[in-house]
Amino acid sequence: MRSWEQNIRVVEPYVAGEQPKTDHMIKLNTNENPYPPAPGVRSVLNEFPAEDLRLYPDTGAGALREALGEYYKVDSRQIFTGVGSDDVLAMSFLTFFNSDRPVLFPDITYSFYDVWAGLFRIPYERPAVDGEFKIRREDYYKENGGVVIANPNAPTSIAENLDFIRDILEHNKDVVVIVDEAYVDFGAASAMELVAEYDNLLVVQTFSKSRSMAGTRIGFAVGSRPLIEALENVRNSYNSYTMNPISVAVGVEAVKDVDYFNQNVEKIINTRERFQIKMKELGFAFPDSKTNFIFASHRTVPAEVIFQELRKKNIFVRYFKRERIDNYLRITIGTEEEMNRFLIVTEEILRNYPGNR
Amino acid sequence: MRSWEQNIRVVEPYVAGEQPKTDHMIKLNTNENPYPPAPGVRSVLNEFPAEDLRLYPDTGAGALREALGEYYKVDSRQIFTGVGSDDVLAMSFLTFFNSDRPVLFPDITYSFYDVWAGLFRIPYERPAVDGEFKIRREDYYKENGGVVIANPNAPTSIAENLDFIRDILEHNKDVVVIVDEAYVDFGAASAMELVAEYDNLLVVQTFSKSRSMAGTRIGFAVGSRPLIEALENVRNSYNSYTMNPISVAVGVEAVKDVDYFNQNVEKIINTRERFQIKMKELGFAFPDSKTNFIFASHRTVPAEVIFQELRKKNIFVRYFKRERIDNYLRITIGTEEEMNRFLIVTEEILRNYPGNR
Repeated sequence: MRSWEQNIRVVEPYVAGEQPKTDHMIKLNTNENPYPPAPGVRSVLNEFPAEDLRLYPDTGAGALREALGEYYKVDSRQIFTGVGSDDVLAMSFLTFFNSDRPVLFPDITYSFYDVWAGLFRIPYERPAVDGEFKIRREDYYKENGGVVIANPNAPTSIAENLDFIRDILEHNKDVVVIVDEAYVDFGAASAMELVAEYDNLLVVQTFSKSRSMAGTRIGFAVGSRPLIEALENVRNSYNSYTMNPISVAVGVEAVKDVDYFNQNVEKIINTRERFQIKMKELGFAFPDSKTNFIFASHRTVPAEVIFQELRKKNIFVRYFKRERIDNYLRITIGTEEEMNRFLIVTEEILRNYPGNR
Repeated sequence: MRSWEQNIRVVEPYVAGEQPKTDHMIKLNTNENPYPPAPGVRSVLNEFPAEDLRLYPDTGAGALREALGEYYKVDSRQIFTGVGSDDVLAMSFLTFFNSDRPVLFPDITYSFYDVWAGLFRIPYERPAVDGEFKIRREDYYKENGGVVIANPNAPTSIAENLDFIRDILEHNKDVVVIVDEAYVDFGAASAMELVAEYDNLLVVQTFSKSRSMAGTRIGFAVGSRPLIEALENVRNSYNSYTMNPISVAVGVEAVKDVDYFNQNVEKIINTRERFQIKMKELGFAFPDSKTNFIFASHRTVPAEVIFQELRKKNIFVRYFKRERIDNYLRITIGTEEEMNRFLIVTEEILRNYPGNR
């Protein structure tokens, strides 16, 4: 038995940001996709046999795993699905991080990691990202109970390349390494191709961002069969039937419409690139984004002021009043029109700020 | 702080049997409802705005809780929803059973209870039900870390009255008492009316049986506000968005169609009563069922033989090869036609059994 397997929770498997509601608002605060899901989703809903809802669903969400397996060219038995990537990640923490040594993840990253660690009483340490918000790979060379890296990282929007991920994997062969790729489709490299090499690597993705389906609650993980089986055992010890058949059906449709997916992602990337240029002109600084948001600070006007003023104009962005990042705004990339409106309103806010007048 | 509150897991909340696939089978093995969901469910699916799926859902499933609150005449803030009652129950175990003392539930009951206890490393004891499969109330008078009673119990189908539940509550004021009422609508008394009196009582129900919606994955709990808030804190430390908006919308429709619900339940109860009479005539013995299944043993033919022979005829029932109950079959109440066919086939199996010929 490999060392990381000893950290898997042993189970007895059962055999079987604010969501404002305002008209005319521009909602750039939860990294939702501004475009609708694949057009076929509507027909799937129209044609879904309502009478089938009386039956329990397929526990393994087989149709969805097969569609994903085909798209990502991976054995469907190497895929685990859940009720959003939060479900997949939480279950992964529960499954894989049963060690006395601390799990490692950056101090600035997805803020659910320490919540899950707290919930499951998992010890953890948060090595500080550097002054430019970059993860320092050397911080992950020490003894630990597991590693979690969001790539691209949130809310910083920074992507690392696969050499970086590979280096972390090379230094962490005895623990499970989770790479959380919620935003990977917007321009970063996926570690999925490393799954064949590292049986302790779990890559987690979601339908909530690039696939425009935050509402359907679909997340998934790709990893070696032992990792996926361990997850399934824990899932089957928690709730045999997490994936409902409607989500599975619309999820399959979304995966199959490759053209729509590519166009959707491309539109957002194009808007982001234009938006970044304009934001620099307005005096904002931010890391180069590989996500569907930017993480920006203004050279003279405090983030909290901009956040509050935008709110008054029904434009919602995310502001974290937290050490190190309390002068930053996380701004989701919306439609071209939404970002133009954002720029006009923001320019006005900056112009009216005392000292800038 | 009351004693049972000390057992609530302290969290830092984030500001979320076999499924054979054969044609012409009669599926009486997972206690599904044989009738479709309320007819309005189809229109809800047809009219659901697919474009809204791009957005995260309401974390609190507010619309569903309000519909349930109205139906059950309880404050919607006293209702917690989850992805099936398994999700609600598992989260309740995680939330409420953090004590060194054992949680108590019967030796013969829903077989997920000990799995959840194992998953979360909760100590437990399983007092034996009596020779007639009845729960002995005195077994629940001892010091413990919590009590879980399925009422009606499964797979025994036996319902206890509210005096029995009240007696258990009177003897267990320092721990959370969960009453799992998955089958209550088929003829038992709900403990929901005791929630106002006992702030440590959590009543859990599901849409999977009486509401014909096993596929939508909806379960809910009713309890005092401190109990519900504790559950919400843990849920929000696990996954902020568990309930997808489609399930919420169809769930609301199902709750609102009171007439359909009543007729559906009545049909199943009527079929069950007729079926019980016929089964006695065939030589079966079973407790009087207050559920949508019966738990039956034959006076001469072993349950396993009947189970296997039924399978050969594409009739699926549930057989538990487990101490004390390995000569019993759990048979779901299907349609009138399905039960008639079951009776014909079973009569033949009994007639052909060596010794009966």
